[in-house]
Amino acid sequence: MESLNHSQITVMFLSLGLLLATARLFGEIAKRLHQPSVLGEILAGIVLGPTILGQIWPEANLFLFPLEGPNALMLSGLATLAVSLFLLVAGMEVDLSTMFRLKRVALIIGITSIVIPFVIGFGAAQSMPQLLGMEAGADPLIFSLFLGIALSICALPVIAKILMDLNLFRSDIGMTIIAVAIFQDLVGWLIFAIILGMMQASNGDGHGMSIGMTIALTLGFASFMLTVGRSVIHRILPWLQAHTSWPGGVLGFALGLGMFGAAFTEFIGIHAIFGAFIVGVTLGDSSHLRQQTRTTIEQFISFIFAPLFFASIGLQVDFFSHFDLKLVMIVMVLACVGKTLGGLIGAYWAGFPRRQSWAMGFALNARGAMEIVLALLALQYGVIGEDLFVALVVVALATALMAGPLMQLSLSRKQPATLRKYLTANTYLPELACHTRHEVIDMLAGAAEPYADMHGNSLANLVHQREQIMSTALPGGLAVPHARVPGLKQPIISVGIIPTGVDWDAPDGRSTKLAIMVLTPEKAGQTQLELLADIASTFSHAPTMAKAINCHTYTCFLAALNTKPHAHEPADIPVKVEPA
Amino acid sequence: MESLNHSQITVMFLSLGLLLATARLFGEIAKRLHQPSVLGEILAGIVLGPTILGQIWPEANLFLFPLEGPNALMLSGLATLAVSLFLLVAGMEVDLSTMFRLKRVALIIGITSIVIPFVIGFGAAQSMPQLLGMEAGADPLIFSLFLGIALSICALPVIAKILMDLNLFRSDIGMTIIAVAIFQDLVGWLIFAIILGMMQASNGDGHGMSIGMTIALTLGFASFMLTVGRSVIHRILPWLQAHTSWPGGVLGFALGLGMFGAAFTEFIGIHAIFGAFIVGVTLGDSSHLRQQTRTTIEQFISFIFAPLFFASIGLQVDFFSHFDLKLVMIVMVLACVGKTLGGLIGAYWAGFPRRQSWAMGFALNARGAMEIVLALLALQYGVIGEDLFVALVVVALATALMAGPLMQLSLSRKQPATLRKYLTANTYLPELACHTRHEVIDMLAGAAEPYADMHGNSLANLVHQREQIMSTALPGGLAVPHARVPGLKQPIISVGIIPTGVDWDAPDGRSTKLAIMVLTPEKAGQTQLELLADIASTFSHAPTMAKAINCHTYTCFLAALNTKPHAHEPADIPVKVEPA
Repeated sequence: MESLNHSQITVMFLSLGLLLATARLFGEIAKRLHQPSVLGEILAGIVLGPTILGQIWPEANLFLFPLEGPNALMLSGLATLAVSLFLLVAGMEVDLSTMFRLKRVALIIGITSIVIPFVIGFGAAQSMPQLLGMEAGADPLIFSLFLGIALSICALPVIAKILMDLNLFRSDIGMTIIAVAIFQDLVGWLIFAIILGMMQASNGDGHGMSIGMTIALTLGFASFMLTVGRSVIHRILPWLQAHTSWPGGVLGFALGLGMFGAAFTEFIGIHAIFGAFIVGVTLGDSSHLRQQTRTTIEQFISFIFAPLFFASIGLQVDFFSHFDLKLVMIVMVLACVGKTLGGLIGAYWAGFPRRQSWAMGFALNARGAMEIVLALLALQYGVIGEDLFVALVVVALATALMAGPLMQLSLSRKQPATLRKYLTANTYLPELACHTRHEVIDMLAGAAEPYADMHGNSLANLVHQREQIMSTALPGGLAVPHARVPGLKQPIISVGIIPTGVDWDAPDGRSTKLAIMVLTPEKAGQTQLELLADIASTFSHAPTMAKAINCHTYTCFLAALNTKPHAHEPADIPVKVEPA
Repeated sequence: MESLNHSQITVMFLSLGLLLATARLFGEIAKRLHQPSVLGEILAGIVLGPTILGQIWPEANLFLFPLEGPNALMLSGLATLAVSLFLLVAGMEVDLSTMFRLKRVALIIGITSIVIPFVIGFGAAQSMPQLLGMEAGADPLIFSLFLGIALSICALPVIAKILMDLNLFRSDIGMTIIAVAIFQDLVGWLIFAIILGMMQASNGDGHGMSIGMTIALTLGFASFMLTVGRSVIHRILPWLQAHTSWPGGVLGFALGLGMFGAAFTEFIGIHAIFGAFIVGVTLGDSSHLRQQTRTTIEQFISFIFAPLFFASIGLQVDFFSHFDLKLVMIVMVLACVGKTLGGLIGAYWAGFPRRQSWAMGFALNARGAMEIVLALLALQYGVIGEDLFVALVVVALATALMAGPLMQLSLSRKQPATLRKYLTANTYLPELACHTRHEVIDMLAGAAEPYADMHGNSLANLVHQREQIMSTALPGGLAVPHARVPGLKQPIISVGIIPTGVDWDAPDGRSTKLAIMVLTPEKAGQTQLELLADIASTFSHAPTMAKAINCHTYTCFLAALNTKPHAHEPADIPVKVEPA
């Protein structure tokens, strides 16, 4: 069998290792800056690709990522595999039952927020194709359809993440936004699959099937999988869990089925990713898919395959030389106006108050990974040029970044305060050798003193006063002494660990080993509640508590907090959408 | 960038889906028959490859798995990636501290059981190279070195699995066997890496490095990684867990590092897998690598990448036409004699009693995945021919299959009895509407009646008598009424679920919702204890219990048992070796 030779294998491992490491690094940095990690992953590809490395050291760029030959084939094949697996996971996020439960509202808003941006995009493309960067020789109809759908698609995972960040996920408006996004994902991808069929047909990439046949088979496949396929899978999964080794049986089944779906849709003339996506929807919808299996698939694919794919996007194009500011601005305005108006009008029509309707429009305007996948395909099929590709990637990322702040503004909602935000190494006291809760509070107040405009004793007195009303000990060995401090600017949190434990009059009678003092500004009642709630919920997770009280270093304590993902800091892309 | 075209992508997904699905299916069947799943995975490739599909439908075989072109390159690149990731995981199984703790014994047995089979293999290859299937034109020295090391290598994961099956894993002899196997893995792979360097040099696959340089760099890399690299990684991991998103940070770090290691060793002229293996050893040895991260990596790689790689082995060669019985027999005898003698002599020397020394020899004789990886490389470098390749694969699998039964024989140890073994659908009674434990026992005895030569009332009376001595209820809602029944041939287990619960005088005062009656032959005291222990341990896992008592069907009940992997039914390949 033909195989890679020695130096090609070396290059393969070196380039994959570099792509993965850089993508993960930049992804982490993006998350630190409260941005979606896909932003960092694409940036990693831009750094390693023709845009930056190709400019400063073209030989290294071409050595690592040659444009042709076995290594180019291998990387492109792997990227195709990676994006299909990513779409499988994205499909698994789609919870059809949420959509069905809110079907009237989801239908109204779903339709307006697809139709309005589609019409705007289609119209703009028809009236000014050259200005919008249609490739010479591309079919104007296909180009217009593409731009219409590119402006109508939204990004379910990005939206779900933003709603969680804003603590809105399980609210009325949150669930409606999710239902609409699910509807749009399904319909949008179906329309896109049909346009893809047309692109392939016009591209003459002879799969020997008429466009009518392709459309019929696409619709047939989607409806078959979502009805018959779905109920068959619901029966097979419990059998697999009972009779095969866990989780290998289900894992192999899910990925194998995803690949067959990908092969089928590629065969009928649309792209492999559509088949993987539909298989993902039918799989993820099953309550028989155990949470842990889901997690294994999602973690590996979103942290390994997705970064590889998104980084490979940056390798395709020189983002500097193809950055056309005028084009970016035009696409940006078209995209934002169409989608925001679509969501706003639909929500208002469906009976939502004005502020929430705006929030709906801003939320649906968030694009992201999906838009980029779509633009990449159009580029590969020669429907759009590199300038428009770069513009679409920029718009996809910019709208994802804007959505959160704009929704906050429209709902005037802030992110809840969290323990981690106010932790510092200087107010972390491991191994307190105290014998009473009074002593513990004095020590914690002393540590907080440098950060308050007040003497430690006065801080301690405020906390003691609160403690006299009722003990702040919670079950499980945690106490949260707290007070509102006049004149304080910022909340102060100090953490004490008492290995021997002290009696804190706890409801479960256990001695207290972890005391976290929360000092908040006098007027910040809401912040205080949020901090206390965050602390209680974090340490109600027994393994977190067990790990935390055995820590001797601040790093160890931070790692303990990381034991359980916070409800509002979920994994970046795959967020399972569950009914409230 | 050069990329796969439409029909190549279709073939890629179709072939990968088929390989994965068939490999997993055959792997599951192998496990059902208590065989290692690697056996089934290789068989899947044999079925889809030239041996079977190629004979009955050559066009389909060539369409799916072409011998050259982009699809062949893609598949071979993916197989190289998969085997390197598999070696990364195999390296993670290596627990250096176990080896260091038992260093004297591990060293003695490790050396005898490498030197003796190596000398036998080397001598045989020198004296009868043609008979053993040396390729014309291959260097006799390299061939002899290869055969020597091929006969000396053992398979840590296979051995660990067998020890767990026999409940010997945490025994003295078990831990010693593991320590020896770890020592052999490290030393054997190091020697093999050097031979690989020689193969590449003689193969003229011009990486432009002298063999001396390759050996020096290999030894340097291994010692650097196991000392400096190891301590740096031990410091980086806790930082990553504390400061990056979980588990993406560690996952990306582990895989990225594995790929850099692979690229480096491929570059210096030995194979990529060696670098991945050494990185795996340094990573897996760290107590900072959290169990769950380890599990995610292991599950995805052992259930997706490893099956893909092992199935691809069957695609390489026609196993029927290259099956040479005489050669297989010769290699088999050489392999078994050398390795068993090596282990036996070493163990006896180190002070083990005779029976345990034999067990050591039989255990170390188990080969498996590693031997096959090694043979494949020798085939690819033209050192051995297809006949010897097939013989080595057969010997690898046969010795893995023999090891368990032979160890049982030498230690006269049987597998412990388990609940699952004696469960039947006919003795499963969901939704018992009983109000007293007396009624429950009568119902369960009635269900057991057809399988015993005794009336149900008499069975029930035996159980009631035992119950009068002391209640058999355990905490958590489980009761295990039991009795030894004169004249019974086989244990009988009947299961009753009582949704409303009955009072069983339980130590925690809770009512009993699950009653499992255990009837054993009069003399089978050990079996009874093993069954009761298995039942108690299975349902002490709260989620298993919760799932079990909500079941209405037998399938659901089996699935509930599957919620937690049994201690003696671990995942097939990745078994973490931990000190007792």
